[in-house]
Amino acid sequence: MVQHMSQKRTIVTYKNGQLQEVEDEIVTEFPFTIHINGEEFATMVCTPTHLEELIIGFLASEGAILFRDDVTDLMIDESSGFAYVTLKSKIKTDQQHSKRFIGSCCGKSRQFYFQNDVRTAKTSMAKTRLKPEDCLNLMRMMQKNSLVFKNTGGVHNAALCTPSEILAGRADIGRHNAIDKLYGYSLLNKIPVRDKVIVFSGRISSEILIKAAKIGVGVVLSKSAPTDLAIQLADDLNITTVGFIRGESFNVYSHPERISDYSVAE
Amino acid sequence: MVQHMSQKRTIVTYKNGQLQEVEDEIVTEFPFTIHINGEEFATMVCTPTHLEELIIGFLASEGAILFRDDVTDLMIDESSGFAYVTLKSKIKTDQQHSKRFIGSCCGKSRQFYFQNDVRTAKTSMAKTRLKPEDCLNLMRMMQKNSLVFKNTGGVHNAALCTPSEILAGRADIGRHNAIDKLYGYSLLNKIPVRDKVIVFSGRISSEILIKAAKIGVGVVLSKSAPTDLAIQLADDLNITTVGFIRGESFNVYSHPERISDYSVAE
Repeated sequence: MVQHMSQKRTIVTYKNGQLQEVEDEIVTEFPFTIHINGEEFATMVCTPTHLEELIIGFLASEGAILFRDDVTDLMIDESSGFAYVTLKSKIKTDQQHSKRFIGSCCGKSRQFYFQNDVRTAKTSMAKTRLKPEDCLNLMRMMQKNSLVFKNTGGVHNAALCTPSEILAGRADIGRHNAIDKLYGYSLLNKIPVRDKVIVFSGRISSEILIKAAKIGVGVVLSKSAPTDLAIQLADDLNITTVGFIRGESFNVYSHPERISDYSVAE
Repeated sequence: MVQHMSQKRTIVTYKNGQLQEVEDEIVTEFPFTIHINGEEFATMVCTPTHLEELIIGFLASEGAILFRDDVTDLMIDESSGFAYVTLKSKIKTDQQHSKRFIGSCCGKSRQFYFQNDVRTAKTSMAKTRLKPEDCLNLMRMMQKNSLVFKNTGGVHNAALCTPSEILAGRADIGRHNAIDKLYGYSLLNKIPVRDKVIVFSGRISSEILIKAAKIGVGVVLSKSAPTDLAIQLADDLNITTVGFIRGESFNVYSHPERISDYSVAE
């Protein structure tokens, strides 16, 4: 069975004071359960595309693997929504990983809330530079490429880019899944990420920012707003966050030195 | 320390071809860790308002409690973001609850993916009826009441309503948290919910639909789209879902018989 991103359905619409039946396109939400080394690890709901990338990216994001080769076997049963993963080594299932982390006030990571993230999110050393036009162009290109959102109003889009072009665009009903697919894409194709940019349709929450840091990019561009916690993490991890990229304007929330032409007097 | 929904910050904005520093309002993302009977239960990120409602609603939604009185003690340390809950009875921590549920093809709940949800989500017996104008008015009223979204672009809004008025409006950066706050509100204030309506700014995913079913309302109104899985669950659970409520139009995706004036020939 091939899964689709959306499907047609007859609904009742209200327009011009009238109720009437019409055909509409509805976004698919797919429950997907991952078993690791014979044990159930997680169930997520997702858009059923690029499932191998999603699993690899999710496992990397959770700290269960570092490289594609840490997975020795991967079987995806798309019709029932199950994946069976065999890892080289035992997965660390000790409870420490889910424990909340309260760091010291100084130093890199006082804003992290999970110990696991402190271990795997990297401070960016990226020397990427973007012109303001690059930010506007990348967002425009990503939106042009994403038809499902226009039809169903239901998915988030994310793209891995150079400052001038899109390398891979992925969509998912889950904000974090769209980013995990890009993470999986970069690991499966061994793409160097340090000089790349993530373009995203959704809000930059702390979770999204931490994922970007784990992937290893230095710049995150978004159509939406960041949260205060995401900005604090971005400050700490040396990541440039740009939000509200709409039409001909945007906001830079952290490390504006990567946006060239930036020379505002303090 | 009082937590706020948003805070001011100096950012760099790009407008009319110029980069310049301006003051902006950034939405707060607050890590909040819940301990139950001395053990860490969960860490969520949320908007730090109505935290008691959030905890009560979250615990009910997770199946840990049924009523407010199942909580014998509740201490919230807002400055550090911790809550300490004592429950009447031991919390069921057996692993069964997180296991994916694959039901039979016929019967109520084949679309559920967690066994826990099968147990606690109720088929609606609500006799609520809404006119098309009620749907438009409730959405308008909720949006009028929610200033933070306009200022920061960062939160979802949810409201518990009668067909003609808002009883409680809650906002959160997490879609599910906004609904959990309403669940907590209804439990803390012992509000009968069967004849009530939930109005929501975000997408109706399966998770949101299941929460609405657990709360016990028969109608969910949204500004956004539902997913296919949410519609299937709504079909099964006898819940009316209305989406894309914008201006003077909307779509009804399930059980349109609760929208009066509905008399479209099949």
